[in-house]
Amino acid sequence: MKKNYLLTPGPTPLPPEVCEALARPIIHHRTPQFQAILKEVGEGLQYIFQTKNDVFILTSSGTGAMEAAVVNLLSSGDTAITVEGGKFGERWTELCKAYGINAKVLKVEWGKAVDPKEIEKLLKQDPTIKAVFVTACETSTGVDNNIKAIAEVIKPTKAVLVVDAISALASVDLKTDEWGLDMVVSGSQKGMMLPPGLGFISISEKAYKLIEVSRSPRYYLDLRLAKKAWAKTDTPFTPAISVIIALKAALDIIKQQGLENIFARHKKMADATRKAMLALGLELFAPSAASEGVTAVKVPQGIDGEKLVKTMRDTHGVTIAGGQAELKGKVFRIAHMGYINEFDIILGISCLEKVLYQMGHKFELGKGIKAAEEVFLK
Amino acid sequence: MKKNYLLTPGPTPLPPEVCEALARPIIHHRTPQFQAILKEVGEGLQYIFQTKNDVFILTSSGTGAMEAAVVNLLSSGDTAITVEGGKFGERWTELCKAYGINAKVLKVEWGKAVDPKEIEKLLKQDPTIKAVFVTACETSTGVDNNIKAIAEVIKPTKAVLVVDAISALASVDLKTDEWGLDMVVSGSQKGMMLPPGLGFISISEKAYKLIEVSRSPRYYLDLRLAKKAWAKTDTPFTPAISVIIALKAALDIIKQQGLENIFARHKKMADATRKAMLALGLELFAPSAASEGVTAVKVPQGIDGEKLVKTMRDTHGVTIAGGQAELKGKVFRIAHMGYINEFDIILGISCLEKVLYQMGHKFELGKGIKAAEEVFLK
Repeated sequence: MKKNYLLTPGPTPLPPEVCEALARPIIHHRTPQFQAILKEVGEGLQYIFQTKNDVFILTSSGTGAMEAAVVNLLSSGDTAITVEGGKFGERWTELCKAYGINAKVLKVEWGKAVDPKEIEKLLKQDPTIKAVFVTACETSTGVDNNIKAIAEVIKPTKAVLVVDAISALASVDLKTDEWGLDMVVSGSQKGMMLPPGLGFISISEKAYKLIEVSRSPRYYLDLRLAKKAWAKTDTPFTPAISVIIALKAALDIIKQQGLENIFARHKKMADATRKAMLALGLELFAPSAASEGVTAVKVPQGIDGEKLVKTMRDTHGVTIAGGQAELKGKVFRIAHMGYINEFDIILGISCLEKVLYQMGHKFELGKGIKAAEEVFLK
Repeated sequence: MKKNYLLTPGPTPLPPEVCEALARPIIHHRTPQFQAILKEVGEGLQYIFQTKNDVFILTSSGTGAMEAAVVNLLSSGDTAITVEGGKFGERWTELCKAYGINAKVLKVEWGKAVDPKEIEKLLKQDPTIKAVFVTACETSTGVDNNIKAIAEVIKPTKAVLVVDAISALASVDLKTDEWGLDMVVSGSQKGMMLPPGLGFISISEKAYKLIEVSRSPRYYLDLRLAKKAWAKTDTPFTPAISVIIALKAALDIIKQQGLENIFARHKKMADATRKAMLALGLELFAPSAASEGVTAVKVPQGIDGEKLVKTMRDTHGVTIAGGQAELKGKVFRIAHMGYINEFDIILGISCLEKVLYQMGHKFELGKGIKAAEEVFLK
């Protein structure tokens, strides 16, 4: 009897309260009833983003929110730094290129975090740089960048810091206001425990000044329209009503658990997962900067990485993620963010042990589980 | 005991099968399981769009799909005709302006359909016109434009015809291939009986040629990326998975009912609504081109139009739409598209009669219902 388990870094599993909210009869978005929900989720998002500024809701994938950051801040001919340490860092560069923005690409070895000093150096070399685009949790490599340290080198400059927190939000600690993050963009299908379809974006005062002068063409993703509508507790275009109603349900869960406890849970699950992998004789892909939201593991020699992921999913119902782009077949990734708890991790490790064993990887059965249980017992 | 009824032109009510599909545990989008769904909904959309060409799915509001049409077809400096007979026609102009496209605005009196000869004249005057943007069902005024006749005057020219079918799709007949509609854009929350959050777009060969040469900056809405991904039954970015799964449920219902029967139902409901309004001594806003998807009615003198809509909604749970922009307070609109049947129309008219009566409008109680019932009995 196969059951389905999701241990992927987006989408993540949905709590029953979220499923229930999604299934409710739809309501109209231009009603006092929906406005009350918008107001409440707006406040909830401020709590999650750790900001006093407005957080805007876009009806789009996370990439739509990333594009909103680029086009609202910069114009063709402007210069920006993009930090490329994986597939999602590359997306910042692609977005800049699409809009004629001169992207100074800071290449970081996949599996490593960016050194904030490298950003500092580039900013000193070129004072015309208007923005720095960085990925908080680079999902493709399982790396968490040190956003706090990056913010410190950017703060004294004219540049704004834009953080892709699509996987990081509500997963790892991100103190938007305290650290001085000018734009934080995110999506619904990761730490927020929702289906994909919503983008979120917070904007500092420093960033607003750029929005007012950006000449990039935009309409659907124009944050000036979003701001104008938000002042009336509204959205400029028909929003993804049902996901916003589910967002209220998810926020209720998050507020009840408390952000600090959620971060601690993710940290513990990440630790347990890493210890389990090492106990199975496996190697972490990003040992020096391993993410608290997703663990990337090298596929051991002699094992077909794609077959491993496929067998876990198609035979046993346990969906983990394979490698993307140049890491295809070379790593697998186990997510521990959102509506995932220790027993999800345990069953994921158990399934991994089973399939690795069948595929001929040599290790002592149960040793991964034991290592994880030891962490969870602490 | 208040129950909630939705008679608005988007969102429209959700069938229970759609609600159930939305509530299911989420699945990952890069799996054979989801690919099978994508393939099936792709074919279903071809049936609904009446086209053999691919129909792409965007994770956005309908406006996102409209923007996709503009930026993929045209470049800054190009010239296009926008037909403005209401709020949604104006959106085409705004989109063109945002991207530096020279919009020749064809103003049409609100409440009237555009005369195809006017489009023909403009096209003859200026052979550089690359595209004509028109609204099939102008929801703000309750007008259906004659898309077939418009297509006939555009077909012999170099220009492409782009149809906003956000309210029209699966609501009124639109023969994309047979009539020669180059781009048809739509959204999920109208005739498709889904929550908002998905945009749809079909593309003719004539339109593809423009997409290949457009220099407008784009990324999230780049249809070249959508096409490339679609060739592998995939989407370029994480799609609104749960709404796509619900789309399959909605398509099953639509296919089972048959498009022809759905159009006939809408036609009958429109006829019943119009006859009922006249029987109550009310005046239609668009008598010469009344939409089959939504009926706009003039608020009678002495009646507060906004209060009428508010009372129906807040006291009785019956949500109809008020007027937008310059029609605010001057019209109300009753939708009869999507998951709405004759008894929804009956209860809507009954509620309208009750509130109009209380507000002092003079008419014989029950006369609107009688007129509608006579139509439904036919």
